[in-house]
Amino acid sequence: MNGDELPFEVYAKGMHKSEFDSDLLDSGSDPIWDAIREEAKLEAEKEPILSSFLYAGILAHDCLEQALGFVLANRLQNPTLLATQLLDIFYGVMMHDKGIQSSIRHDIQAFKDRDPACLSYSSAILHLKGYHALQAYRVAHKLWNEGRKLLALALQSRISEVFGIDIHPAARIGEGILLDHGTGVVIGETAVIGNCVSILHGVTLGGTGKETGDRHPKIGEGALLGACVTILGNISIGPGAMVAAGSLVLKDVPSHCVVAGNPAKLIRVMDGQDPSLTTKHDATKEFF
Amino acid sequence: MNGDELPFEVYAKGMHKSEFDSDLLDSGSDPIWDAIREEAKLEAEKEPILSSFLYAGILAHDCLEQALGFVLANRLQNPTLLATQLLDIFYGVMMHDKGIQSSIRHDIQAFKDRDPACLSYSSAILHLKGYHALQAYRVAHKLWNEGRKLLALALQSRISEVFGIDIHPAARIGEGILLDHGTGVVIGETAVIGNCVSILHGVTLGGTGKETGDRHPKIGEGALLGACVTILGNISIGPGAMVAAGSLVLKDVPSHCVVAGNPAKLIRVMDGQDPSLTTKHDATKEFF
Amino acid sequence: MNGDELPFEVYAKGMHKSEFDSDLLDSGSDPIWDAIREEAKLEAEKEPILSSFLYAGILAHDCLEQALGFVLANRLQNPTLLATQLLDIFYGVMMHDKGIQSSIRHDIQAFKDRDPACLSYSSAILHLKGYHALQAYRVAHKLWNEGRKLLALALQSRISEVFGIDIHPAARIGEGILLDHGTGVVIGETAVIGNCVSILHGVTLGGTGKETGDRHPKIGEGALLGACVTILGNISIGPGAMVAAGSLVLKDVPSHCVVAGNPAKLIRVMDGQDPSLTTKHDATKEFF
Amino acid sequence: MNGDELPFEVYAKGMHKSEFDSDLLDSGSDPIWDAIREEAKLEAEKEPILSSFLYAGILAHDCLEQALGFVLANRLQNPTLLATQLLDIFYGVMMHDKGIQSSIRHDIQAFKDRDPACLSYSSAILHLKGYHALQAYRVAHKLWNEGRKLLALALQSRISEVFGIDIHPAARIGEGILLDHGTGVVIGETAVIGNCVSILHGVTLGGTGKETGDRHPKIGEGALLGACVTILGNISIGPGAMVAAGSLVLKDVPSHCVVAGNPAKLIRVMDGQDPSLTTKHDATKEFF
Amino acid sequence: MNGDELPFEVYAKGMHKSEFDSDLLDSGSDPIWDAIREEAKLEAEKEPILSSFLYAGILAHDCLEQALGFVLANRLQNPTLLATQLLDIFYGVMMHDKGIQSSIRHDIQAFKDRDPACLSYSSAILHLKGYHALQAYRVAHKLWNEGRKLLALALQSRISEVFGIDIHPAARIGEGILLDHGTGVVIGETAVIGNCVSILHGVTLGGTGKETGDRHPKIGEGALLGACVTILGNISIGPGAMVAAGSLVLKDVPSHCVVAGNPAKLIRVMDGQDPSLTTKHDATKEFF
Amino acid sequence: MNGDELPFEVYAKGMHKSEFDSDLLDSGSDPIWDAIREEAKLEAEKEPILSSFLYAGILAHDCLEQALGFVLANRLQNPTLLATQLLDIFYGVMMHDKGIQSSIRHDIQAFKDRDPACLSYSSAILHLKGYHALQAYRVAHKLWNEGRKLLALALQSRISEVFGIDIHPAARIGEGILLDHGTGVVIGETAVIGNCVSILHGVTLGGTGKETGDRHPKIGEGALLGACVTILGNISIGPGAMVAAGSLVLKDVPSHCVVAGNPAKLIRVMDGQDPSLTTKHDATKEFF
Repeated sequence: MNGDELPFEVYAKGMHKSEFDSDLLDSGSDPIWDAIREEAKLEAEKEPILSSFLYAGILAHDCLEQALGFVLANRLQNPTLLATQLLDIFYGVMMHDKGIQSSIRHDIQAFKDRDPACLSYSSAILHLKGYHALQAYRVAHKLWNEGRKLLALALQSRISEVFGIDIHPAARIGEGILLDHGTGVVIGETAVIGNCVSILHGVTLGGTGKETGDRHPKIGEGALLGACVTILGNISIGPGAMVAAGSLVLKDVPSHCVVAGNPAKLIRVMDGQDPSLTTKHDATKEFF
Repeated sequence: MNGDELPFEVYAKGMHKSEFDSDLLDSGSDPIWDAIREEAKLEAEKEPILSSFLYAGILAHDCLEQALGFVLANRLQNPTLLATQLLDIFYGVMMHDKGIQSSIRHDIQAFKDRDPACLSYSSAILHLKGYHALQAYRVAHKLWNEGRKLLALALQSRISEVFGIDIHPAARIGEGILLDHGTGVVIGETAVIGNCVSILHGVTLGGTGKETGDRHPKIGEGALLGACVTILGNISIGPGAMVAAGSLVLKDVPSHCVVAGNPAKLIRVMDGQDPSLTTKHDATKEFF
Repeated sequence: MNGDELPFEVYAKGMHKSEFDSDLLDSGSDPIWDAIREEAKLEAEKEPILSSFLYAGILAHDCLEQALGFVLANRLQNPTLLATQLLDIFYGVMMHDKGIQSSIRHDIQAFKDRDPACLSYSSAILHLKGYHALQAYRVAHKLWNEGRKLLALALQSRISEVFGIDIHPAARIGEGILLDHGTGVVIGETAVIGNCVSILHGVTLGGTGKETGDRHPKIGEGALLGACVTILGNISIGPGAMVAAGSLVLKDVPSHCVVAGNPAKLIRVMDGQDPSLTTKHDATKEFF
Repeated sequence: MNGDELPFEVYAKGMHKSEFDSDLLDSGSDPIWDAIREEAKLEAEKEPILSSFLYAGILAHDCLEQALGFVLANRLQNPTLLATQLLDIFYGVMMHDKGIQSSIRHDIQAFKDRDPACLSYSSAILHLKGYHALQAYRVAHKLWNEGRKLLALALQSRISEVFGIDIHPAARIGEGILLDHGTGVVIGETAVIGNCVSILHGVTLGGTGKETGDRHPKIGEGALLGACVTILGNISIGPGAMVAAGSLVLKDVPSHCVVAGNPAKLIRVMDGQDPSLTTKHDATKEFF
Repeated sequence: MNGDELPFEVYAKGMHKSEFDSDLLDSGSDPIWDAIREEAKLEAEKEPILSSFLYAGILAHDCLEQALGFVLANRLQNPTLLATQLLDIFYGVMMHDKGIQSSIRHDIQAFKDRDPACLSYSSAILHLKGYHALQAYRVAHKLWNEGRKLLALALQSRISEVFGIDIHPAARIGEGILLDHGTGVVIGETAVIGNCVSILHGVTLGGTGKETGDRHPKIGEGALLGACVTILGNISIGPGAMVAAGSLVLKDVPSHCVVAGNPAKLIRVMDGQDPSLTTKHDATKEFF
Repeated sequence: MNGDELPFEVYAKGMHKSEFDSDLLDSGSDPIWDAIREEAKLEAEKEPILSSFLYAGILAHDCLEQALGFVLANRLQNPTLLATQLLDIFYGVMMHDKGIQSSIRHDIQAFKDRDPACLSYSSAILHLKGYHALQAYRVAHKLWNEGRKLLALALQSRISEVFGIDIHPAARIGEGILLDHGTGVVIGETAVIGNCVSILHGVTLGGTGKETGDRHPKIGEGALLGACVTILGNISIGPGAMVAAGSLVLKDVPSHCVVAGNPAKLIRVMDGQDPSLTTKHDATKEFF
């Protein structure tokens, strides 16, 4: 079966196992932060008009958490929620949560590996609203779990307004996530997303009108959700599955299957490997 | 026919007749404003880091109109359209228009009743961009009707930029409306929306290239438009009808029918009652 | 074949050959700038509350480039990328590039001619985020071609965040373009768009996961892409073709054809004329 | 005794009886506001780069009170006291208080008449911080008298920080006052200033360490306080008196006398007329 | 000798030994912070229009240091030195320096005790620029001593611009200081100020043109410097001395003496007690 | 006569002939700009928290004029006079006026040479409000001479409000000027200041109430005006003269004389050389 015959395609870049080794952090070394600073220094020299921007966002800081908190606080501020107030909130969480410290590195690796337009780690931190929205959600999620629901919802509101990406703070999202372009993404309260998932813009993980209870999709590890995909209800997208762009999915999708259409139908079973691994990645390429 | 068999679903929460009694306003009592203040006081105590935000947006004000005008002016400002200029505009309309005073209460009730993620009245005022965009539209609509088209269009522009929700000020929209998530919604110049309609994100009520005249959809009372629905042309969606997520609708939809697909087809006739009433609401639940 | 029988429609306004004659610029006369100033003066008188806004954006400036650079710098600024820094960038390009000077005039003519909600040239400059995003992209594209990729990507990032419109600076886009409403539009790195194309909101010109090389759609002159259309891969949409709203396009579309559906199918061949000309425009109307 | 022999001089411009007739306001006519608008229109034409500034501050408004409130709110704002909050405060007082409405006109006339660097009424409103501080004080004074001391003190704080002019809101100040340059002026809690007084920069009307009670100077009508004059304690400067620049005054100054020096001594008795009248004005000239 | 005979007066309020007991801090109790919160709560209820201001500045914070850092960061910010950057700087110092934690409490007690216009502790934190400038200086001084001179000078610059108070970060200033009104105060690099000193506005502690070395005044404990006093050179103002308003001091002033005039002369010897103690305070009162 | 006997002192640092050679600029070399960049680079490395500030203000720019225009535009902006508008104004003048280009370099040399607290050229540009106010005045003066009085007065207003330094744009001021600390300085419309003059804070060059004509002081080359000096009327302070701190001057001061007191009296004749030359500088030192 070749691309010519295939009636549906996925708008999404390949992905593979993140190369970031999170054990490194415990050893006191942080190769991603080192790389980010290296990139930013080169960029500041190459493009002086951006130098203050690069220094403010990256080079003036001591660690990735501090840089990210600074960037997010200044992006999400408005006249009634000051940057200084937001900075308190972000530092309060990011400086102390090992889980988030790991996630923000796995995610940045995912953006670097899988988004061909992401030329450097530093560009994810400075420029990509998908990355911004995801990390701000991670802080909101932590606050939600600590019972600070009001604060979590306030963050969700600002993320949705500034980035056009609406992620409920109660949703559970793994690490190594790519949120590409991001505009229009909606992820509901009881949605669950496994590790190494890639999500394009316009994707909805929605409920079905039931007012309470577990009512949103569950996305398996290594799955790929194409542009403008709508997935509704407490259904399961299997690990390594692929949902083609523009699909409307209302039923479970088995592991390592490709679905497409409105409503979505099973198009093909991929090789048994997870698409987040190298071979899957190749398989995905061949698929188109 | 049960949910398992049904190939389409609507991503939308249930709705029912708003419980707000607008006669109360004339009596000088305002139970919604009272409730909002009560909620905000509790929240300010519970989450001190948000206290100034809650006071600035709600507790410092004398009435719902003043609070809402303040919030909207500070959200929609930019360096060439100052918050103080916007405040003049919002107060000028909202303090004197009984119709808007009624709508902003019926709408907030709709958000509270039908959006399970909307935990309180105050969160609609402070956090929900669908509510913000809708109320700012209401002011723009009033200005448009008074012949102040330039000002109305300036507001539309800011609403579209800030919230990603583009509602032409000439559109006519009833009350008790839920605009959930909101990103990507486009509502054209001659569109008409009845009372108690619920609209999910990504919905387009568009024209069909005719340059003038009545060219946009008419949505009946109590209808439900799912996520990413596109409805084009001067067609009619009947009262109590339901358009499933991701549908493209080009023809009239009869009252109390469910349509789905691209292009949309009739899926089912619901019981004769309006979905905005309690029984319809139950029917909707059963439908999924 | 009449509208009743047709299962798909395009949500897009008609378009025709832009009436702007770019030779005029060389003669030192600039009828569009003259018209813009004339409109703004009338509007400032009619709506005093907007007068400072009209003066700041238009009447205080000497030429269209200066006005546009001012408006964009103040729209795209944030606390770490100051308006004064952006102004330097915009003036640096727009004041010296004849190509951009021509494009910003052809585009504004396109908005005026084809968007019935665009009542005046001045409203495009002051209010329409589709026009703003397009002109800011043009500056980013110039910078990209000059090898200043970092700066170009920084602009792309701000455009995507502020307007919800994500255009890669390497994409090549002709002139006389209408980008209507704009929210959710994504245009990839190797996409090419001919002159006089009209693009509605929610349109994706996406890649297919191939990490490098020419992987995005090519849109022929005078084509019309309806609302929420998704076009993926290095395929060709022929000149004068029409893609109906909500379509998913994965294969080439021949010249002057209409396609619709998910996946899109050929619906009809239009008369041989380019839809950007008057007769095409009529044909389009008849089509619905 | 002639100017050559005189060891002290006053740095102050002449003053005379304000030409503004406050009865006009009651008749519905407002010649000062008319003049301000006329000036601003001419200036906007003459200096387009300032046009939006002139429109925002003056031409977009319906009356002098609205223009002044707008200007002050935008000058005195900071991140924790928003312009919209200040606008509420200023409009709340200025729109309803006849006394303030009279004072802001008599004062502007005084600036225009007596400050040779004040070329127009509009420049006082837009440019002169002495005028700004004085009018903001008038609002704070009204609030103080209504028992809203906290709000009055908040205004005093902002006035002192922004303009470097520190006037206690409890001080009582007449109308037709010129506060020239203004930097460093301090006016204490129980100070009283009569009508038509002119006060140069660096003037202190201070107490003497007594912790309570009436402890600040009383300045008679038509008096002239030169640059960097320090007057301490509950003493009286008589009507029409003149205190030369740099003087330190610790004792009463009789009516129509000139004092100078550190400590100040009586230098001369002026003609019996009030210096705020034309003849006094001449007398002052002769004095130097 | 009574007030009538005395040719010079000091414009300054009485002072006495601060009632704050700094041992309390070590015990984990903080009566000043408790009082500030109590005051702010009452004020927020009494004046709702200021409530968000009071919450943002005081009630949202956990300790005095956090509140003060927040207020100062938002006061001293400008477009190139962001509030978030300043917050980092202030918290970095104030959260860890016991000396500053003691000083900010002794100073606030001094303002409350000696400035009759300072009605509450909270008003010092929120409103008094003398207090703001002094505490920001304390942070700059700490940074200077740690060798971070560039940062210290950057703070000095912002303090001088925003508050009109120019204190060199190398100056050494004790605690329990009142800086009343503050405008125009200049304190040079090698100046030293003892505990419990009161300084009015317009005071200069200046050098004499020697380019290096110890060249500024030394002010003894409990001294009182009146309004617009100029003291030049490495001279000594003895403990408990009083310099009357408007004086120019070029020679040492013995302990507990009163000097006045330009140039200043010895006017009187006060009782042997320190004016910062209760009896001195009485003596001071009698003096006027 | 030695310092001990001298009853008056000047609070001012020594000055000498600026070392900057303005012929260099014509040769295309700019040693001051080179030095500023070198300093800023070292400082950014030494104090990372200031790095973005140093890059935004200095290192991102191509020449001293561009850096200075950027800094001033961002300092003088307010909500109704945008930074982008001010940048246009500053660049418009500074990029084309050779005189100003020379002055801003001679002045910065003067600050570096004569103000012991000015450790580097870069600190003058980034931190010293006396330097900021002086350069902004130079632009206003140029505009005034070109007949753009309204714009010049608008700048004067902002300078006075932001820096507390009020210089009439019509005043004529030479180059190599030190304006130390600056708070409270007032320089009138017809004042003239020669080259290499040093002016401390609180200095007034005022008129005497004459409403028109030449009415302000003329300050000779190399003169030194101490802190809080008041000079009134069209009198002449001779070249190389020195006015001691706190003096009130109402009569001409001969060349190379020292005056002091209120009113000022002749204290001493200095050696015949100009104090702006090395020997004068020594003489000044000896004087104290």
